[in-house]
Amino acid sequence: MTPELLTRMIKAGAGEVPADVVIKNVRLLDVITGAITHTDIAIVADRIVGTHGYYNGARLIEGDNRFAVPGFIDTHLHIESSLVTPYEFDRCVLPHGVTTVICDPHEIANVLGSDGIRYFLECAERTVMDIRVNLSSCVPATPFETSGARLEIADLLKFRDHPKVIGLAEMMNFPGVLAGDPGIIAKLVAFQGAHIDGHAPLLTDLALNGYLAAGIRTDHEATTATEAREKLAKGMAILIREGSVSKDLDALAEILDANTSAYVALCTDDRNPLDILEEGHLDSSIRRLIACGRTLHHVYRAASHSAARIFGLTDRGLVAPGYRADINLLGDLEHCQVADVITGGRLVTPDLFEARQPVPAVGLASMKAKPVKPATFIIPANPRQNETPVIEVRPGLILTYRASAVLEVSDRGTLPDLENDVIKIAVIERHGINGNIGRSFAKGFGLKRGAIASSVGHDSHNITVVGATDEDMAVAVNRLIELGGGFVVADGGKAIAELALPIAGLMSLLSFEAVAEKLHRLRDAAYGLGCTLPEPFLQVAFLALPVIPHLKMTDRGLFDVDRFDFVK
Amino acid sequence: MTPELLTRMIKAGAGEVPADVVIKNVRLLDVITGAITHTDIAIVADRIVGTHGYYNGARLIEGDNRFAVPGFIDTHLHIESSLVTPYEFDRCVLPHGVTTVICDPHEIANVLGSDGIRYFLECAERTVMDIRVNLSSCVPATPFETSGARLEIADLLKFRDHPKVIGLAEMMNFPGVLAGDPGIIAKLVAFQGAHIDGHAPLLTDLALNGYLAAGIRTDHEATTATEAREKLAKGMAILIREGSVSKDLDALAEILDANTSAYVALCTDDRNPLDILEEGHLDSSIRRLIACGRTLHHVYRAASHSAARIFGLTDRGLVAPGYRADINLLGDLEHCQVADVITGGRLVTPDLFEARQPVPAVGLASMKAKPVKPATFIIPANPRQNETPVIEVRPGLILTYRASAVLEVSDRGTLPDLENDVIKIAVIERHGINGNIGRSFAKGFGLKRGAIASSVGHDSHNITVVGATDEDMAVAVNRLIELGGGFVVADGGKAIAELALPIAGLMSLLSFEAVAEKLHRLRDAAYGLGCTLPEPFLQVAFLALPVIPHLKMTDRGLFDVDRFDFVK
Repeated sequence: MTPELLTRMIKAGAGEVPADVVIKNVRLLDVITGAITHTDIAIVADRIVGTHGYYNGARLIEGDNRFAVPGFIDTHLHIESSLVTPYEFDRCVLPHGVTTVICDPHEIANVLGSDGIRYFLECAERTVMDIRVNLSSCVPATPFETSGARLEIADLLKFRDHPKVIGLAEMMNFPGVLAGDPGIIAKLVAFQGAHIDGHAPLLTDLALNGYLAAGIRTDHEATTATEAREKLAKGMAILIREGSVSKDLDALAEILDANTSAYVALCTDDRNPLDILEEGHLDSSIRRLIACGRTLHHVYRAASHSAARIFGLTDRGLVAPGYRADINLLGDLEHCQVADVITGGRLVTPDLFEARQPVPAVGLASMKAKPVKPATFIIPANPRQNETPVIEVRPGLILTYRASAVLEVSDRGTLPDLENDVIKIAVIERHGINGNIGRSFAKGFGLKRGAIASSVGHDSHNITVVGATDEDMAVAVNRLIELGGGFVVADGGKAIAELALPIAGLMSLLSFEAVAEKLHRLRDAAYGLGCTLPEPFLQVAFLALPVIPHLKMTDRGLFDVDRFDFVK
Repeated sequence: MTPELLTRMIKAGAGEVPADVVIKNVRLLDVITGAITHTDIAIVADRIVGTHGYYNGARLIEGDNRFAVPGFIDTHLHIESSLVTPYEFDRCVLPHGVTTVICDPHEIANVLGSDGIRYFLECAERTVMDIRVNLSSCVPATPFETSGARLEIADLLKFRDHPKVIGLAEMMNFPGVLAGDPGIIAKLVAFQGAHIDGHAPLLTDLALNGYLAAGIRTDHEATTATEAREKLAKGMAILIREGSVSKDLDALAEILDANTSAYVALCTDDRNPLDILEEGHLDSSIRRLIACGRTLHHVYRAASHSAARIFGLTDRGLVAPGYRADINLLGDLEHCQVADVITGGRLVTPDLFEARQPVPAVGLASMKAKPVKPATFIIPANPRQNETPVIEVRPGLILTYRASAVLEVSDRGTLPDLENDVIKIAVIERHGINGNIGRSFAKGFGLKRGAIASSVGHDSHNITVVGATDEDMAVAVNRLIELGGGFVVADGGKAIAELALPIAGLMSLLSFEAVAEKLHRLRDAAYGLGCTLPEPFLQVAFLALPVIPHLKMTDRGLFDVDRFDFVK
């Protein structure tokens, strides 16, 4: 900020010199009080300098009596879940009014470590939306699978003072916090006084107190109002999450009222491209909270000002003089139809995105698994028992259930039982570390033939493949390796649908629209194999996450989450 | 924070090891939701580690079913107005539940410059209460009087990163902001992104927008609800002030509701020792806001959590795990009777104050005026007019009025007119800079004899003296110089009551109680001279402040505030 610029801001605010941009003729919603005022909004550079009055400026934007609200802030998400680069995410989500996102590059960090965080920070310095980064606190997320990287405190400290960094990302290893794990304690100590993001599903009573005593202040994992109310009472801000997999909005809507609205914010966590395309982003959460009967200005306050305050972004969150010019113009408030977006004083138009300096893609050689053969998937007969454990998936849940089956054994080992919907599953370590392959059985997919493979596999992102035949499993995996990562559906000995995700095996080089189209084709191809899950790839992506009950598959073997140990 | 300590905090919070201190058996008020919960409060070191549960600890404090609320935060004050050192202020105000104060050492800085700020910071590092400092932005406050120091941006930058410093103190020179004064702009530029405290009485419309465009975010000068509501709507936090002179609480109480309570805080600005002794401090504001009908938890929220958030003190403001252990135990909530105070985990008892490391007093030779003679106060006949301008004071107002009188002239110049309550006033430069003496007449004091002198004279703190006779004015001033500053009442050629304020002519070396006793004697002595003002010293202290309408007296002469120029 130069003295000349600050002086011009002051004088333009006072009406003595023209502003750079004036949004004429809007109805400004005060998200604190709910008042609506007819006004112009004067902007100089990236800052609002005048409201509640009428202004002249070098450039006029006709507000047409639309509503003006502060830009929305997504307080917790993994951009990787959009399957596109931060640049494409920027281009497609900013028009939904999301002017700031606070991301945790947890997925790419599990593959690439510091290089992944650096990539996100470099993108964040160039996108039109303001991308802020919390530093991934739990890489690897668990010791029960093989990740591509480890991030210790020394790795995080290199990034702590970066201007785009807010603090430490979701501390999901709450058992480690409570046990006083030295590596975790070191990270918590280093971020005392800064923001430490929480992640504490179902944690309650004194265990929750212990977790909070570490200085953790937010939670996006509450799934019931009762859980959220205990957390609020203990000083946690609640980030109401509505992602593609985890959908907590309906259950949590009731906690948002006049008293709590400064303490509640919104987040998406993981939202896939098809949902963004079909439903929107935070705009969708806003309209649904309003539909749930929440008061208009409390909802918009949570989506903007409260989020900014909770995360220490003191420069934004209100449409008021002196605040960052992040403004959404809406045709109506109830349905949150975002018509125009102004961010950092700029009207969002396609040329803004075209003018961004490119950042080279990273992690293009991250798929280090060796090609496999059908025989790779042979599962020897279980000598100790007739009953074989089977992972059961249910539509829309990342929770799995423990089932079992009596399976036939041939010279190709234990066989799947397609009539009873028991297929094979394997997880193949792909970071070039140990070549582990875990193999087992799953049910609930409905597959009658073919195979589905994914290099998105939370949180270590090894290759997960499910299939009716060993041959198609091998085809799917080998094609996926050729693509440098992605999604593949194979049938009859060939790949019939695919999406390459060559950036760390997580993100596409294609446009958001092209990715969405390919996802439609992949989904249709999976349905063609008999798949009965509405979102097969989302569910495959969570089969390897050994912190979600009850039975999971990692590259190290079948994992019983309830016993917190591998099935022997 | 060591890893060992953080681990102990976590484990004590989880109930696995004993806490250091447990407050047993309290009713905890949730200042966000208003809920009241019966609980223990567990503390390790300076941090709350457990609430909403029952705990064991090395030391138990019996809560006796009293109410527990967060420690109060005074968001804007000048400790100098208490007339005692920060140490004595600490000892006497902390027991009122005020665990944090955010002070602006504006008065001492006008006398001693950087040395005054350094003294406050050194005290702040040793007091039991947490004293935070905003750096005085306007020294001198105006060019119309002679101050003892100037603070330019280079002087402030030396202190900006001190751990006790929050940001830039009240930017009272709003005309300078709006005019783009380069010295002021330099200060504002240097604190962009940090806290910049506001001070904008009656500023409205586009002029207010211009002021806010500079990044200023708080105001403690609103005197009507209408004024406060405009400021709130433009993103300013409102600090409801209730001082000894400026009393805005009754007018502003109505703005505090569920929507705004996160945005409203409390302050005292200037509160004299007698008011602290007789009425209390923020506890008094709290009970009066409740008496005005405000909702209990909104009032306590404004006094604690909202204040903390507004000023970026993210470690405090709630009684919840992970927060600083600043806790007040109250017999009841309605009357805010503070029974016990815990600050930084320590129960406040006299030994805490006794254990503080002393800080040497500063400014002990700041009274650099030369002794005066009665003839010093001779006012030559005004050759141009029969009518002589007279400053009229009214009880309880720092505003003055322009009156005039036809006065007799003798060989001792123009004479006072005691029958018509016209006495003399003089302001004597005392910083050793130019020896200026301004002389004029005042009415409204009721003095029939004697004189009253004060080295507290906002904002430059020259010597202000009013008197019925030149002889007693000289006696009062000379005794005040001998004392190194203070208050003196003279009568019949001798000083009859006095209080030495040798620290920069502003603060006593005595105990709070001794100061209060001497103030009583001084007030009685002034009444004995015929003085009809209830608070003569408060009113003398504001006679030299040339930014308050309408007619003021500085060392440079009689100043017409409405014309913003000296009376020729």
